[in-house]
Amino acid sequence: MVKTYKSSTKSMSKGLQVESSSNNFKLMMDEPESLGGTNEAMSPVEALLCALGGCQAIVVKAYAKAQGLDIEDFSVDMEGDIDLDGFLRKRDVLRGFQEIRYTMHFKTKESREKIEKFVEFIEDTCPVGDTINRKVAILNKKIEIE
Amino acid sequence: MVKTYKSSTKSMSKGLQVESSSNNFKLMMDEPESLGGTNEAMSPVEALLCALGGCQAIVVKAYAKAQGLDIEDFSVDMEGDIDLDGFLRKRDVLRGFQEIRYTMHFKTKESREKIEKFVEFIEDTCPVGDTINRKVAILNKKIEIE
Repeated sequence: MVKTYKSSTKSMSKGLQVESSSNNFKLMMDEPESLGGTNEAMSPVEALLCALGGCQAIVVKAYAKAQGLDIEDFSVDMEGDIDLDGFLRKRDVLRGFQEIRYTMHFKTKESREKIEKFVEFIEDTCPVGDTINRKVAILNKKIEIE
Repeated sequence: MVKTYKSSTKSMSKGLQVESSSNNFKLMMDEPESLGGTNEAMSPVEALLCALGGCQAIVVKAYAKAQGLDIEDFSVDMEGDIDLDGFLRKRDVLRGFQEIRYTMHFKTKESREKIEKFVEFIEDTCPVGDTINRKVAILNKKIEIE
C-alpha cells in the first residue's frame, strides 16, 4: 500500500526562521546565531536527526511485544558530522552529514544477544533510516513564479 | 569547520508517541491510527519532509540577497511515496521514500531564468537534501542495556 506523505514550508518574518507543517502539525526551524539565525528553534539538520531517532523509537514500540521482547524503556542518541564549509560555500565539500552514529539505551531483562538481533531488525525496518542510508531522488516537480 | 549535531529521543507513555530533542528544542512524533498510533503529532517520515522543506527555505533566505535576487516570499511543498508494506513487514519492499518531489513558489519580479538558476543553487547547497540524495552511513556506536 503506497502512501504519499506531504509537507508545506513557508518563510517566517524573523531572520532565517521557517515553518513547516505536515498532517496539520507544525515544526518551526531556525539556525544558531553563528549561522545567521536567531536560535529560536532547532535547525533542519537537527530535525533530520530527531526524525531518525523518532523513527527507530517508534519501530521499537511497534514491534517489541510482537517479537516477544519485554522492553521497559528505550532511548536513542544520534550524532552526525557536517563540514559547514559546504553550506557556507567556502569549499567544495559534502553539504550534508558525513556519517551518522547512534547509541541505543534499553532498559530490559532480555539477553544482549536478543537485543542485538532486535537492533538489526530496527535498522532493517526504519523508513527514515532507509531514506538516509540510500540515495533517494529529490525531483523538481514545478517552479511557480508570481 | 566540522560541527557535530546531536539529538536524543525517548519513548513517551502513550501509544507509539516519542519525543526527540536537539539543541534544547523538542519535537514530538506519533503515527496515525491506521498505523497503530494516536495521531497527536506528525510522524517521523513527515518530520523528514518538513526538515527538507525547511532546509531549502533557509537556503533561500540565507542566499537570495547575496545573489542579488529580490524575493518577496517563498514557500515549498514536498511529497514523497512510501510503500507501507515495508514498515509493516508484509513484503520485502523499500522501507523508506521511493522518491521525493517538490513544488516551489516564488513571489518575485526576477526572471524565470534567474530563479531557475537559483533553484539549482538551492539544490546544490541544502545539507538535508544532500543527506537524503546520497547514501549516508548510519553506524551503531553502542548498545547499552541496563
